[in-house]
Amino acid sequence: MSVNGTMQAWGERADGNPLLAFVDSCLRGVGQVCFMNNPVTGLAIVIAMFIGEPWLGFAGLLGVVVSTLAAIVIGMDRGAIRAGLFGFNGVLVGGALSLFLQPDWDIVVMVWIVLGASLSTILHAALANVFIGAHAVPPFTLAFNFITLIFLIGALNFANGRVGGLIAPADAQVTRGSVSNTLRSAADAATANNLEGVLNAIFRGIGQLFFANSIVAGIVIVVGIAVCSRIAAIFAVVGSTVGMLTGLALGANGVAIYNGLWGFNSFDAALAVGGVFFVLTWRSGVLAVACAVFAAMLFGAIGTLFIPWGLPALTLPFCFATLAFVLLKGASTELEPVEVADITTPEEHLALSAAERSQQEGVGRQAVPA
Amino acid sequence: MSVNGTMQAWGERADGNPLLAFVDSCLRGVGQVCFMNNPVTGLAIVIAMFIGEPWLGFAGLLGVVVSTLAAIVIGMDRGAIRAGLFGFNGVLVGGALSLFLQPDWDIVVMVWIVLGASLSTILHAALANVFIGAHAVPPFTLAFNFITLIFLIGALNFANGRVGGLIAPADAQVTRGSVSNTLRSAADAATANNLEGVLNAIFRGIGQLFFANSIVAGIVIVVGIAVCSRIAAIFAVVGSTVGMLTGLALGANGVAIYNGLWGFNSFDAALAVGGVFFVLTWRSGVLAVACAVFAAMLFGAIGTLFIPWGLPALTLPFCFATLAFVLLKGASTELEPVEVADITTPEEHLALSAAERSQQEGVGRQAVPA
Amino acid sequence: MSVNGTMQAWGERADGNPLLAFVDSCLRGVGQVCFMNNPVTGLAIVIAMFIGEPWLGFAGLLGVVVSTLAAIVIGMDRGAIRAGLFGFNGVLVGGALSLFLQPDWDIVVMVWIVLGASLSTILHAALANVFIGAHAVPPFTLAFNFITLIFLIGALNFANGRVGGLIAPADAQVTRGSVSNTLRSAADAATANNLEGVLNAIFRGIGQLFFANSIVAGIVIVVGIAVCSRIAAIFAVVGSTVGMLTGLALGANGVAIYNGLWGFNSFDAALAVGGVFFVLTWRSGVLAVACAVFAAMLFGAIGTLFIPWGLPALTLPFCFATLAFVLLKGASTELEPVEVADITTPEEHLALSAAERSQQEGVGRQAVPA
Repeated sequence: MSVNGTMQAWGERADGNPLLAFVDSCLRGVGQVCFMNNPVTGLAIVIAMFIGEPWLGFAGLLGVVVSTLAAIVIGMDRGAIRAGLFGFNGVLVGGALSLFLQPDWDIVVMVWIVLGASLSTILHAALANVFIGAHAVPPFTLAFNFITLIFLIGALNFANGRVGGLIAPADAQVTRGSVSNTLRSAADAATANNLEGVLNAIFRGIGQLFFANSIVAGIVIVVGIAVCSRIAAIFAVVGSTVGMLTGLALGANGVAIYNGLWGFNSFDAALAVGGVFFVLTWRSGVLAVACAVFAAMLFGAIGTLFIPWGLPALTLPFCFATLAFVLLKGASTELEPVEVADITTPEEHLALSAAERSQQEGVGRQAVPA
Repeated sequence: MSVNGTMQAWGERADGNPLLAFVDSCLRGVGQVCFMNNPVTGLAIVIAMFIGEPWLGFAGLLGVVVSTLAAIVIGMDRGAIRAGLFGFNGVLVGGALSLFLQPDWDIVVMVWIVLGASLSTILHAALANVFIGAHAVPPFTLAFNFITLIFLIGALNFANGRVGGLIAPADAQVTRGSVSNTLRSAADAATANNLEGVLNAIFRGIGQLFFANSIVAGIVIVVGIAVCSRIAAIFAVVGSTVGMLTGLALGANGVAIYNGLWGFNSFDAALAVGGVFFVLTWRSGVLAVACAVFAAMLFGAIGTLFIPWGLPALTLPFCFATLAFVLLKGASTELEPVEVADITTPEEHLALSAAERSQQEGVGRQAVPA
Repeated sequence: MSVNGTMQAWGERADGNPLLAFVDSCLRGVGQVCFMNNPVTGLAIVIAMFIGEPWLGFAGLLGVVVSTLAAIVIGMDRGAIRAGLFGFNGVLVGGALSLFLQPDWDIVVMVWIVLGASLSTILHAALANVFIGAHAVPPFTLAFNFITLIFLIGALNFANGRVGGLIAPADAQVTRGSVSNTLRSAADAATANNLEGVLNAIFRGIGQLFFANSIVAGIVIVVGIAVCSRIAAIFAVVGSTVGMLTGLALGANGVAIYNGLWGFNSFDAALAVGGVFFVLTWRSGVLAVACAVFAAMLFGAIGTLFIPWGLPALTLPFCFATLAFVLLKGASTELEPVEVADITTPEEHLALSAAERSQQEGVGRQAVPA
C-alpha cells in the first residue's frame, strides 16, 4: 500500500475500524497544517514535536484529539473530519498554549488546551462558512490564531491564566539603530559561522511552525512532507530560505532569524502557493517566492504590532499573505488555480492539468477533420 | 390585546397614528438590543435605564429617537424601521456616551449623541448590506460599537471631546499574580457573601447591557423580556450566570464580576443562540452555553486589548461570539437555523418547527398508501 | 481633441504606441486616487507633487510605474490597467515612503518603494476579488494603506528600515485639556488670521492626499480635477472644508488643521459620494457632506489608535467612511447608485440618468394610448 499522496486506499481501509479512522483523521489533521492530507506526514510531525519537547508533543496530540472530537459531537461533515480539516487548528492551539503558558505538564494548562481546541473547531466552521461560501478561499489557520490570541491576551489579567515569561508587554520603540542581524543562537552567543547559521535558520524555520525549535525536528518534518509530496517538500525549504533572506535584507534581529522565527510563515506560504492552490508553473513558482517575502514582511509587522501586549505573531503572517496571493485567482489569466474542493497534492494537480490540456488538444485535433 | 410575542395586532393598530407608530418603532428598537421585537419589553428597558440613572434613560431615548428619525429621512425600508431595526444601535450609542462622557446633562454631550446616533443608522445599513447580503447573518450591534469607539478614541485628543474619568489609557501588564477574584462591590469593599455576590453579578450583568449598574434594573429587564418570550428570559439569566462563572474560573477581577461586567455580553449571546437564531433543542441549548463562555473569554480579551487607549469592550464580545456561533448554520446538519427574515420569538420558532415536522410526517404517511 | 471627462478618444489614440499607452495608464493611475480617469488630471497631480518636493514627485512616479508594470507582468486585465486601476495604490506607496522614510534620494528607500509598489498591485487584485466580487464595492486605496503600514511598523525594528523622525511611538493619553485648536502653521507659530488659516487648511488639505503640504499644490490639483469634472472639483473643495470644520468643532489640534491633515480624507470621501458612486442629487449631496464629517471623525480616531506605534492614519479614514456610505446602495430607494463598472464622471452619470428618466417617461407616455 502506497504512502505517497493522500493515501486514499489506506484511508478507506481505516474506515472499517472507528478507532483507526479516528487516529487517521487526527494524523491527517496534523499534516493539514502544511496542506498534507497524509497520516504518515502527520506522524512525522508529531514525532518532530516530541523531539522538540515531549510536553509539546503531548499538548499537540491533546489539541488535535479534542478538536476532532468536538467536530464529531457537533455533527460536522464526516468527509471534512476524515480529511483532517477539524484537526489542524487544534494541534496548533495545543502546541502554542504549551509554549506560552507555564508550567509544563500543568493540569490547568491542559484544561485551557481542551477549551481552546474545542472552540477552534466552532470558529473554523464559522470562518469556513464565510470564506469558502463567499470568496472560495479557505480560512487557513485563522481559527487557531484568533482562539490562541484571545486566550493569551485575556490571560495577562487572569489569576488562573498561567501566562509564562515569553509573554512580556512592552512599549513599541524605534530600535533600528541598535538592531544586529548577525546570525547567532542567543543575544549573548557568539556569531554563528555562515553554514551553521543558515542551516539553523532554515530547518528551525520549518520546525517552528509546530513550535519545535530544533534543527532535527525541521529535517524530520521535511522528510514527512516529502512522503506525501516532493514538490511541497522543496517549496517548504525554499520558503523557509526566502523568509530568512528577507529577514536579513530588512535587517531583522539575527537571533530571531537563527532560531527560525523568520522561516515558518514563509515556508507554509510558499508551499501553499507553489503547487497546492495553483498548478505549479514558472509563474506560480515565482509567486510562491513573492508570497514568502510578503509573509516575512508581515511577520516583522505583526510582531511589532503586538509588542504592547507581548503577544506572538503566530501564523497570522502566513494566513494574510497566502490569502492575498490565493485571491489572485481570476485576476490573472496566466494562473491555473485549483478549487478548494479539488485539492490533493501538487503532483496530482500537475498530472490532472496535463491530462486536461492533452484532452483539449485531442478534442481540437479531432475537431479539425470533422 | 395580547402583549405576548411580537404584538403584531398592536403594531397594526399603532400604524394608524404616525406619532404612535414612531413611538412603537422606538420602543421596539430598544427591545431589539436583546432581539425582542416588542414595545412593552422596550418600555421595561427604558424604565430600567431611568432606574439606573435618569441621565442614562434620557440619553438612551435621545439616541433611539435620533437613529430612528435618521432612518426615516434617509429612506430606509419601512418594515425594518417599524421592527425597531434602526433603533437598537442608537439607544446604545446614547447610553454609552452618557456614561463615558462628562458631565451629565451637558449640551455638548447631547450633540455628540445626536451625531453618533445618526451615523449609527448609516453604518448599520452598510454593514447589513455586507453581512446579510453575503453571509446571511445580521451585523448585530457592531455599528454601535464602531461609532462609539471611533468617537471615544478620537476624543482623547479633542478639546471638546468631553471624555470622562472612566476612559484612562494605561500600559498593558501581566497582573495575573495580583488579581483577586473575590466578589465584592469595589476594590476596597468587604467580600460579599455568596448569595449577595452571585445575585449582583447575574442581575447587574443583565442591567449592564444597557449601562444600568443596578440589580433592580436587571430584574426589571428580565421581566420585560419575559413579556415577549419566557425562553429568552431564561437564557438571559442562564447566559449572565455562565458569564459570571467563566470569569470566576479564569480568575478575573472580582469587582468587575460583582458589577455585572462579565455577564452582559454572555446574556445576550446565550439568548441569541438559544432559541432566536436556532430553534431550541438540547443541542442548540448547549451551544448557547458554549457561546456564553466564548463571549466571556472575548470580554476578557478585548478589555485587555483596549487598555492602551483606556477604551471599554462594549458589546464587541457579544457580536463576535454570536457571529461565530450563528455562522455554524449549514456546517452541522443537527441544527435548525432560523433565517434572519423569519425571526420572531423562540416560542414561535419552536411551534413552527413542530408544525413543519408534523406536516412532513403527514405527507409521509399519506405517501405510503398512495 | 477634448481633455474633458475620461478622454476616451485620446486614450484610443495612445493605444497605438505601447510606450505612450503605458505613460497614459500611469497618469490615469495618478488621477484615479481621486476617481479621475484622465491623464491630464494625473499630470497636474504629478506637477503638484514636484511642487511639494522634487523627491516626492520622483517617488510617486517610481511607485506608479512599478505598480503598473507589475500588473502587466502578472497578467492583470488590460482594460483595468489602461484605466489606471493598478497605478493609484503605487503612486501613494511611493509618496508615503518618501515622506516617512529617511533620507531623501536614498537608494535603499527606492528599493523599498519598488517592493511596496509591486506588492500593492497583488494585494489590490486580491482585495478587488473580495470587495467587488462579494459586495460590489471597490477596495479603494486599502492596498496602499496596508502595504505602507506593514512596512512602516516592521521598520521600527529593522536595521535597514530607514524610518524617519515622523514615526515616533508614544503612549496614548488624555490631552483634551491642553489641546489648542487655534489655526497656526506650527506649534510655536503665531495664530494665523482667519482667511490665511482657512485657505491653508482647505488647499493644503487637498495637497496632503498626495503628501504635498503646499497651498499651491492644492490649487494645482483642484484645477487638474476640474479638467476632468467640475462637479468633482467642487466637492473636493467642499469636502476639505467640511473636514476642517469638523476638526474645529471637535476641538482638534489647530496645527494639524492648518496643515491640511483634517482635509485630505474628507475631500476624497465627499468627491466619491457626491457624484461618482451616486448620481448627484440634493440627497446624495447631503450624504457627501455627512461622509466628509465621518471621514474626519475617523481621521481623529485612527490617528489616536496608531499613537503607540507612531504610525500615520494615511487614507484609511477615507476608505472606511466611503465604504460605509457607498454600501448604502440598495438600503435606500431614494439614492441612485452607479455600478463600479459604469463609473465615468459625475457629469456623465447625471446625463445618463436624465436620459434614462426621459426614456422611461417616453415609454410611459406611449403606453397610455396603446
